Amino acid sequence: MSTIAKATWIWYPGDFEVWLGNIFNNRRTERGAMFPPFWKQDSHWVTVEFSKAFHLDEEETITIASEGLFNLMLDGKLQYGMPKTFTIPKGEHKLNLKVWNQATPPALFIEGQTIKSDASWLATYEDKIWIDENGVAHGSGIYVPAASWNFDSIDIPPSQYQLKREEWKPVSVTDKESGKLYDFGRETFGYLKFIGLKGEGYLHIYYGESQEEALDKEHCETLDHYLCAKDHVVPSFGSKAFRYVYIEKDSAVEYDNLCMDYEFTPIDLTKSGSFRCDDEELNKIWDVAAYTMDLTTREFFMDGIKRDRWTWSGDAIQSYLMNYYLRFDTECVKRTIRQLRGKDPVTAHINTIMDYTFYWFKSVLDYYQYTNDIDFVREIYPRMLTLMDYVLGRTNADGFAEGKSDDWIFVDWVDFPMHKRGTLCFEQILFCKSLEVMAECATLLRDNPLSNPPQGSITTEQYSSDASKYQQLADTLHKKVTDTFWNEGHHAFMHAIEDGHMNTMITKFPNMFAMIFDFVPEQTKKDILKYVMQNSDIEQITTPYMRFYELEALCAMGLQADVLKEIKDYWGGMIREGATSFWEKYVPTEIGVQHLAMYGRPYGKSLCHAWGASPIYLIGKYFLGVKPTKPGYAEYEVRPDLGGLTWMKGDVPTPFGCIHIEASNHEIKVISNGGKGTLIIGDLHIDIPSSQEVMVSLD
Amino acid sequence: MSTIAKATWIWYPGDFEVWLGNIFNNRRTERGAMFPPFWKQDSHWVTVEFSKAFHLDEEETITIASEGLFNLMLDGKLQYGMPKTFTIPKGEHKLNLKVWNQATPPALFIEGQTIKSDASWLATYEDKIWIDENGVAHGSGIYVPAASWNFDSIDIPPSQYQLKREEWKPVSVTDKESGKLYDFGRETFGYLKFIGLKGEGYLHIYYGESQEEALDKEHCETLDHYLCAKDHVVPSFGSKAFRYVYIEKDSAVEYDNLCMDYEFTPIDLTKSGSFRCDDEELNKIWDVAAYTMDLTTREFFMDGIKRDRWTWSGDAIQSYLMNYYLRFDTECVKRTIRQLRGKDPVTAHINTIMDYTFYWFKSVLDYYQYTNDIDFVREIYPRMLTLMDYVLGRTNADGFAEGKSDDWIFVDWVDFPMHKRGTLCFEQILFCKSLEVMAECATLLRDNPLSNPPQGSITTEQYSSDASKYQQLADTLHKKVTDTFWNEGHHAFMHAIEDGHMNTMITKFPNMFAMIFDFVPEQTKKDILKYVMQNSDIEQITTPYMRFYELEALCAMGLQADVLKEIKDYWGGMIREGATSFWEKYVPTEIGVQHLAMYGRPYGKSLCHAWGASPIYLIGKYFLGVKPTKPGYAEYEVRPDLGGLTWMKGDVPTPFGCIHIEASNHEIKVISNGGKGTLIIGDLHIDIPSSQEVMVSLD
Repeated sequence: MSTIAKATWIWYPGDFEVWLGNIFNNRRTERGAMFPPFWKQDSHWVTVEFSKAFHLDEEETITIASEGLFNLMLDGKLQYGMPKTFTIPKGEHKLNLKVWNQATPPALFIEGQTIKSDASWLATYEDKIWIDENGVAHGSGIYVPAASWNFDSIDIPPSQYQLKREEWKPVSVTDKESGKLYDFGRETFGYLKFIGLKGEGYLHIYYGESQEEALDKEHCETLDHYLCAKDHVVPSFGSKAFRYVYIEKDSAVEYDNLCMDYEFTPIDLTKSGSFRCDDEELNKIWDVAAYTMDLTTREFFMDGIKRDRWTWSGDAIQSYLMNYYLRFDTECVKRTIRQLRGKDPVTAHINTIMDYTFYWFKSVLDYYQYTNDIDFVREIYPRMLTLMDYVLGRTNADGFAEGKSDDWIFVDWVDFPMHKRGTLCFEQILFCKSLEVMAECATLLRDNPLSNPPQGSITTEQYSSDASKYQQLADTLHKKVTDTFWNEGHHAFMHAIEDGHMNTMITKFPNMFAMIFDFVPEQTKKDILKYVMQNSDIEQITTPYMRFYELEALCAMGLQADVLKEIKDYWGGMIREGATSFWEKYVPTEIGVQHLAMYGRPYGKSLCHAWGASPIYLIGKYFLGVKPTKPGYAEYEVRPDLGGLTWMKGDVPTPFGCIHIEASNHEIKVISNGGKGTLIIGDLHIDIPSSQEVMVSLD
Repeated sequence: MSTIAKATWIWYPGDFEVWLGNIFNNRRTERGAMFPPFWKQDSHWVTVEFSKAFHLDEEETITIASEGLFNLMLDGKLQYGMPKTFTIPKGEHKLNLKVWNQATPPALFIEGQTIKSDASWLATYEDKIWIDENGVAHGSGIYVPAASWNFDSIDIPPSQYQLKREEWKPVSVTDKESGKLYDFGRETFGYLKFIGLKGEGYLHIYYGESQEEALDKEHCETLDHYLCAKDHVVPSFGSKAFRYVYIEKDSAVEYDNLCMDYEFTPIDLTKSGSFRCDDEELNKIWDVAAYTMDLTTREFFMDGIKRDRWTWSGDAIQSYLMNYYLRFDTECVKRTIRQLRGKDPVTAHINTIMDYTFYWFKSVLDYYQYTNDIDFVREIYPRMLTLMDYVLGRTNADGFAEGKSDDWIFVDWVDFPMHKRGTLCFEQILFCKSLEVMAECATLLRDNPLSNPPQGSITTEQYSSDASKYQQLADTLHKKVTDTFWNEGHHAFMHAIEDGHMNTMITKFPNMFAMIFDFVPEQTKKDILKYVMQNSDIEQITTPYMRFYELEALCAMGLQADVLKEIKDYWGGMIREGATSFWEKYVPTEIGVQHLAMYGRPYGKSLCHAWGASPIYLIGKYFLGVKPTKPGYAEYEVRPDLGGLTWMKGDVPTPFGCIHIEASNHEIKVISNGGKGTLIIGDLHIDIPSSQEVMVSLD
């Protein structure tokens, strides 16, 4: 199969995300105030040079467009001005264009008969020319392949990127004492629009994820006060998350109707995950989880659509994993990984949280496993290195990752007393995983060299040396963590070292990660399962965030039936409370408006939070039972587990399309369009041929 | 003396310079093509938080202006929207404003009865809030005093900064075959203006520092092709350096007159250096040098006004030193130091040149010595640290600063064969000076602690530890350089180690720096003077750049009479060639248009180059004989040396005004308005009282 080259906008890798991320994260408002994050916001490189060497059989005229001022060099000679077209004679040539743009990322579009800007071009932020004693100029910059996506039209450059919109109408309107309450039927996200607005005076708009919030003018989390003026400019409100909107207005202001532009990432259902089974409640849970994911899958994966509307690494890694079983939107994964990492120098953990730094490392290898995209690993590896330098530069005398006074040690929101200072076992297990990820990525890059690496590329020798170094660090840490924190009597990892003393508290956190990350052998997993995970004396987890890992640990041990019950209780519980998307936190014992409060604010809780959507992941990976065993599903397994359901069917997206599974107690069917699959039923291993249905009768 | 607080625009330190520096450096054009530098261009922090705690006796309403979107927090509570005014009740309060601006540096202006934005506000790019297990939020960011300058009007924010302009007319117009040649009488800089322009068609504008250049359409370095269109928009040309302009045009295009807007930094002659003596040629040299300096003293100190129009560290340090004897424009010094350093991470030497990194370090201590501005040293110290980390991270196994393949080792433009690879003694002497500067700055900051350091400040213990560390490194390097490179037989430092072998070539470069930097004892200086500096077998220096140091070394040895002759020969030679500003390079043996060529281009040489102006420095420091001996002229010496002149008089600017000197063979007069001065005449030391004339009769 040959692909026809096409011109596309190119830029410096990661810069689009850094720039877009600032816009994205700064859209958060709190009662009408802009609310940027409290970690540093980076910038794109403002001056970037793009270059390509090529051969022309015939003279060729190229069209040039740029975002930013540019210069153009042909074969080392600067050309006049900033031409829109330029003719290049036949023969061997090299084009260099330097683009400068402070406000948006420097970007370039070039289209000729054969010369087309694309990923085959190189980019650098520093060509580092210098002149030796013989007057010879040397360019010693570091060059990388230019980044691109789907900006294939000269008229739509990267800075014009936006999601899609469609108009939605409210499902009901209720008159209240001083205004009107609009209900859009379910949680949504977008831009309010007033039809036929006229008159002068104030419009007061109170948004609510709940009716209570919209009607509580003093405490609702988001609002707008808009002054309609004489000139009757159509007001433009920032995007908001809401189901309800309560409007009060000055009497001189009138409008005919209210509607909204729903904003969303386009979805291709033919390439998406799906799920249906005999349990209607579980079907509903899957649908609400999918909607929760779709609402939070945007320019980047966001935590919650009302709050925080930020990229958070701990939230994002779960979104990525769910996404691999729902939309397989790999571009959004890459964008979010790049955006979270930002630029050097590293001045804080990702989102300031130590655990979030560690999740970030793991997310890179997860991504590779699901996609086989080695180019992305190569792109991001230098930023993995400098982030790991930061981590290693802050370890304590024992080599543990101990929180310093400016580190946030998050773990989870817990309702029981749990110290987070000192050296937490939980953090060490994540740290160890991060070192293993470094070693694995270095090994991958060592073993997959480019045939023609750009100047300044990391050498194979360096990758090889990195691989050894990080594996050794991981091995040393692994042993030390086990020696220090494992309590054989309790069959559990203990919590932390504080001021030189062991805090012998046992929580599920380090223990379930030891299971999921294969930090312990199989027998130990069984011990942890019994003595920690299924031990009712251990404090319960109350966030969907950590329930993700808890239930994964149980599924990995084959306890799908138990997990199914948990899903129906916990996520079913939210639906019974009226949830149309899943929440940031759910405590079944709470009642009424208690469910809306968090952080000491009556409506502080996010009612559409990505980490609430984990059934998507659990069902796809552990019920339909699909996971890649080689990168990008080159090899994969299908290990269906009904967990007590009578039947189920569904799709799991992969790089080569969906794998379709139907399972009941009587038969199992699998259809797949690529990869080397194995259907596993108990001890039975059956090859899954490409594009041919496999059916196994169990009767 | 009390100062009345006034509101002024504030921003994050260094960010104004980083942003302005990109605009400045990217204004260079080469035959109509934009020509950015080949090192990385940084960005300002796009989101900056400004804060201040204060007490109000009475309620107060503040006016708020910002460059960028902002939020406003009073006592930790976010306020609605982006108010233009805000009322704060009496009592203890804290204001936090976060400003976001991608395109220009986030800046803030606040004015109330008592609350005024100024340097007493704090700034951070990362407030790094995190929440502990008890739900308590901690802010662990690094805070620094906000930067400000003279933007005291709410209507003129920092992004509106520009130099002054005034209209100049040509002194002659000559008809040529196809166009007109305009002569502005001397080298100048600014914007061409056509008066009464009408018609449609092309204007072709060729700029020349020389008549030959302007008339050479194929080779002149700068030009504009402007298409006059129907709409008759007044054309706006970028600023250019020129004395001559040659215009060709389509016949349908007409204009009445041509003039220019000369662009300049305002000068206060009452606070400027001056010089007059009985030698009219020397007076002329001083005037042309002063004009050369004024032309190159702009938003930053630039190298040359035609080319490169960039900030170069090696050029800049000389501009700073000349400037201390001409305009004492300390803001331009600080701006240039900040701009050259840019942001972390350090990815290259300053301007990619190793020697230029070392000059940068020295320039910080020079600045402190002339100004006593410890606040600037404190501001820049963290960036000194990371730059020195870069240097130390690249030393070779012997601890020497050896050029790596991506380092430019410049030293000087030389016409004789001189290898620059390997370990150059010249670079080690500069490296050693840089380490001493680090130690001295750390010591200064240790000994001058802030009474109330902002959160995240470097501690006194750290400064103390740094001081020891860098002094030890400097001492070790000093000994090693002497042991390795000093040749007792030749009384000289040898050139370099190449591939493990000593290159025994002897040049003036390392030897004169050893003299100037007091790298060797007095007796050794005398040896070097005799065996190297005054040895005609040693290759001659041909750039004014290195003549600066060469002549300084001679002056420091008391050879003013010799230096005066050199100045009259060399700089007088340029004037005899018609120079109206001093050149990048001057080779007395060249004739005619040979003087215009450089870099293989017929007009490649810059005819107005800052480093050509060194007589300003030499005359001020070594003839008028004024230099600070304690920071900021708290103590200083005046050691007049006529060097063979009959009489001279002049002024040297200081933080407390000018020191006026008049000297002849008969008497010496000094008037000064501050500091503890000592007039030194031979062995005679005479106190100079403040604001009282000292006169010493020599008859």
